[in-house]
Amino acid sequence: MSKKIAVIGLGSMGFGMAASLLSAGHETYGFDVNPEQSLRFQAQGGHVGDLKQVASDLDIVVVVVLNAVQTESVLFGQHGCVADMPAGSVVISCATVAPEVARDLAARCAEKSVLYLDAPISGGAAKAAVGQLSIMAAGPQTAFDAARPALDAMAQTVFDLGDQVGAGSAMKAVNQLLAGVHIATMAEALTFGMTQGIEPAKFVEVISKCAGTSWMLENRAPHIVNGDYTPHSAIDIWLKDLGIVLDIAKGAKFAAPVTTAALQQFVAASGQGLGREDDAAVAKVYARNAGLKLPGDA
Amino acid sequence: MSKKIAVIGLGSMGFGMAASLLSAGHETYGFDVNPEQSLRFQAQGGHVGDLKQVASDLDIVVVVVLNAVQTESVLFGQHGCVADMPAGSVVISCATVAPEVARDLAARCAEKSVLYLDAPISGGAAKAAVGQLSIMAAGPQTAFDAARPALDAMAQTVFDLGDQVGAGSAMKAVNQLLAGVHIATMAEALTFGMTQGIEPAKFVEVISKCAGTSWMLENRAPHIVNGDYTPHSAIDIWLKDLGIVLDIAKGAKFAAPVTTAALQQFVAASGQGLGREDDAAVAKVYARNAGLKLPGDA
Repeated sequence: MSKKIAVIGLGSMGFGMAASLLSAGHETYGFDVNPEQSLRFQAQGGHVGDLKQVASDLDIVVVVVLNAVQTESVLFGQHGCVADMPAGSVVISCATVAPEVARDLAARCAEKSVLYLDAPISGGAAKAAVGQLSIMAAGPQTAFDAARPALDAMAQTVFDLGDQVGAGSAMKAVNQLLAGVHIATMAEALTFGMTQGIEPAKFVEVISKCAGTSWMLENRAPHIVNGDYTPHSAIDIWLKDLGIVLDIAKGAKFAAPVTTAALQQFVAASGQGLGREDDAAVAKVYARNAGLKLPGDA
Repeated sequence: MSKKIAVIGLGSMGFGMAASLLSAGHETYGFDVNPEQSLRFQAQGGHVGDLKQVASDLDIVVVVVLNAVQTESVLFGQHGCVADMPAGSVVISCATVAPEVARDLAARCAEKSVLYLDAPISGGAAKAAVGQLSIMAAGPQTAFDAARPALDAMAQTVFDLGDQVGAGSAMKAVNQLLAGVHIATMAEALTFGMTQGIEPAKFVEVISKCAGTSWMLENRAPHIVNGDYTPHSAIDIWLKDLGIVLDIAKGAKFAAPVTTAALQQFVAASGQGLGREDDAAVAKVYARNAGLKLPGDA
């Protein structure tokens, strides 16, 4: 059955998710601080407008902004929508946030009888555009039930992590720990190989078939081989996400030395002015330190 | 055509490789410092005896010992075989060694007109036993040609890394950098997840389908879930292999901070008396530091 759904945040992930909701036949509203993104969504058949005005008619709000501060703002800030959403409607919260932030947001939604699904996403913009994301979801069954029409349209896989809000955000943090470290390690290994005469293309050809491979290596190492740092996911995302991981870890008195080392390489990349380049550009830090020329270097 | 082949080192990898050579119909001699391994090989139809006595009849010598010192010893030590091997025979050198060590060994073989294939292996004992290893091989075409009957029997995939001895060892070092870091990172992520209420089995179920996965995570994390630290590959292997990686890196003035952080976790595991346990036992270091109980803990 067609639902009335708002997507807040029409970035590379949110735009694709909104388009997937449209394709599934839902009456979909798109909101973004960048008016060009809203116009682009309107051109595809989406609705735009004033969030406060439509909030009272919404069944589902999907929040796909950058972080906890933005999520709090769009839900509870001056122009926040939760105050006007009907009882029994649901917020699907997709930004990477700490589990305790998710629990806090859920409690504040509950005060307005609005359901909350802790639902971080994984898969990248290409999968978002075709409704094939992975969603790590946690929340009460009522929230899952209310969110189901949107989940079905946006995701290929919904991991049901139980009824405790925060479990989705925790699993997302675990995934980001691994993904971020694997990107930095790929860059470390690829450039280390170059010091021993191994060409980046040969590295990808051989290692992707060996025990040293990872999902991130296979996805990102070709960017270095091609010298193409168009940002699919940017360096600065890892300052944020590995920062969240280490904040959670410190709060739990958990020592995470490998994650710490990897984060410092992303920090160095951002410090070199590469923050908005593709995250594979962390290889440039290694290359500069070792006097290597990467593919595409002048 | 059946060849006369010696396998030096009948450990978990070498035994399987020798068995694969036997299965392929080669007259195969097995040698090990542990007489029980030699007797076990003899019981499977293998030949045993005195290496010096058979060396002059050998077509191929496969060296599968632990490290550079042992490789040097079995080739050129007091009971070394190269002095007695016929001109045109070939040494297939499989231990993980630095590229410069491989070049030195090849040069010393050449003085005796013995060919040398730089041929580190990957894949583990199970694949060794069924002739399905990956071999990262480099050396002159004459060495590849002479080694071919043994390679065909032992390997599913032979990566031809060119005619320069050392390129195989370099690629192996790159692979070990990634594999070792990925094991430590898996342990860091799994135990970090436990601090947030994520059960190890759920970690494996979800993350193996997400962007945070790696070959090593999928292979080793189940050991932790099952509380089974029977050593398929031991903690102390990583002190050796990541040590080699960092020696090579320092020689090339290449900074490898993520590898360094991972190595320290294996060093701590060894220091806690876990050196001979499966390398997944590096998770115990994280668990002790954070006061967590892993599956199987009393």
